[in-house]
Amino acid sequence: MKTSNLLTALTLALAATSAAQAAAPRAAKPAAEVLKDSPASDWRALDPDNTLLMDLTAGQVIIELAPRFAPAHVANIRALARGGYWDGLAILRVQDNFVTQWGDPDGEDAAKARPLPAGASAKLPAEFSVPIERIGKQAGFTRLADLDSWASRTGFAEGFPVAADPSTGRAWLAHCYGMVGAGRSDTVDSSNGTELYVVIGHAPRGLDLNITVVGRVIKGVELLAALPRGTAAMGFYDKPEQRTSIQRVRLLADVAVAERPALQVLKTESKTWQQLLDARRYRGGWYVHNPGRVDLCGAAVPTRPTPPSP
Amino acid sequence: MKTSNLLTALTLALAATSAAQAAAPRAAKPAAEVLKDSPASDWRALDPDNTLLMDLTAGQVIIELAPRFAPAHVANIRALARGGYWDGLAILRVQDNFVTQWGDPDGEDAAKARPLPAGASAKLPAEFSVPIERIGKQAGFTRLADLDSWASRTGFAEGFPVAADPSTGRAWLAHCYGMVGAGRSDTVDSSNGTELYVVIGHAPRGLDLNITVVGRVIKGVELLAALPRGTAAMGFYDKPEQRTSIQRVRLLADVAVAERPALQVLKTESKTWQQLLDARRYRGGWYVHNPGRVDLCGAAVPTRPTPPSP
Repeated sequence: MKTSNLLTALTLALAATSAAQAAAPRAAKPAAEVLKDSPASDWRALDPDNTLLMDLTAGQVIIELAPRFAPAHVANIRALARGGYWDGLAILRVQDNFVTQWGDPDGEDAAKARPLPAGASAKLPAEFSVPIERIGKQAGFTRLADLDSWASRTGFAEGFPVAADPSTGRAWLAHCYGMVGAGRSDTVDSSNGTELYVVIGHAPRGLDLNITVVGRVIKGVELLAALPRGTAAMGFYDKPEQRTSIQRVRLLADVAVAERPALQVLKTESKTWQQLLDARRYRGGWYVHNPGRVDLCGAAVPTRPTPPSP
Repeated sequence: MKTSNLLTALTLALAATSAAQAAAPRAAKPAAEVLKDSPASDWRALDPDNTLLMDLTAGQVIIELAPRFAPAHVANIRALARGGYWDGLAILRVQDNFVTQWGDPDGEDAAKARPLPAGASAKLPAEFSVPIERIGKQAGFTRLADLDSWASRTGFAEGFPVAADPSTGRAWLAHCYGMVGAGRSDTVDSSNGTELYVVIGHAPRGLDLNITVVGRVIKGVELLAALPRGTAAMGFYDKPEQRTSIQRVRLLADVAVAERPALQVLKTESKTWQQLLDARRYRGGWYVHNPGRVDLCGAAVPTRPTPPSP
């Protein structure tokens, strides 16, 4: 009798839950509340050696570099920024639902191409993937349990979306919106970080493992995504005057402390990040159907203004 | 002995294949060639009753409507366009990596809101999904074998990306880049097609089954995706002067035949479409790693200028 009563109670409880779900889906703590309640220790400062500031007339774009995934490219990008390589160069290409790309408009012309600054290499190895061991605890890798249609294992490490294949023992940065890569021509080792692109559309995951990914835009991606699309092949601009010029690109370490952006990034190994993912899985409120899952490329790691010292 | 020789030969053949793949991946016929060789019968004309032309100063946006998936909304959108409802209204909201939305800036103010034209309804039912039977052979549904992380069955019907769940017996349009939906407020039946949005970022599939999707932009989506992002909450513009105005929106059937865009759309039930999907799965050329798969939202159905009559 007791068991039977218990079962009846359970059944009623489940029925009630089910009815409530039909009216409004099970809701996790909403993202705004998760962020408001997040402990200070779940946020980190920008790393001066791995942050680029790109100044456009319209505003500033901030890029976090990923030395764990592309050490040679990141070292070269640091040298290029230190040498003022991109200052006065331009955005060359905006292809709708794909990428915005910048570099030297005369890069293909040896006579006119801007010379590389001291310390920068013209030639680098391809860095399309790393040994899977490199995304272990040291990198604060947190696995994403949700299904991904491109890779058998995914997650986040140091703020970046990561995919991996235990059967090949390789891990790589996924081409999500806002990810930055190093353009190359036909040979795999033809990128040196001088020409960079950012994803501005649906994640082109087919590029994964085909090109070196070097980082992620953490602020100002809209300045690169809202540019007029180029009308020549692959979104290149037809005429030089259509290009947006780049005022300068600096490594954060080279910027006076007082001038550095007061910005923090959420740690992807934090509980807050897990709660934000849950807030996307179980949305409540306006949503009447719970997605019940998140997409590796569907959840951008948030930033916030550095709060005043207590 | 014979078996053993055969096995050896097979092993050698496999090893050779494997080495060739490492150098350059198995390539399907490239997309450009597939399109060039496509038979005229794989293309279709625009349907005058299900095509909207939206004129902006920057150019024309063409939208195909999906009456099979949202019959009440599409009927209302036809009536709204016929009554000139959107003429002189505006783009109200551009949220980066999400949506561009348009409608009546005074829509929330009953005293100032533009009245609905004759034949348009203020209230419609929610049309978030349809019975799965509706995407059968009649709709030319072709299944996509590739894994999707959001739905157990996906494919294409009448040019649209479709997801379905046989366990619930429902099918719906997927929120891919370029898909157009009808904005709603908190109640599920609060959309009437007056306020429309288009996806301009990574597919927000979490919206699937939560809102009525009415069609897809087949041309000119970049005119809506490259607009400056609004800086108020949800990408709304702060000031009226930041909005892009809409010159007019017409149903193709109401446009003089001589003025209609000479455009064709590839049939998604065609062999050419299957070949294009294969060209994305097995890319060759610049690619050194074959993705081996496509993404429901990663392959847009192409259009082309109507070829001259032979």
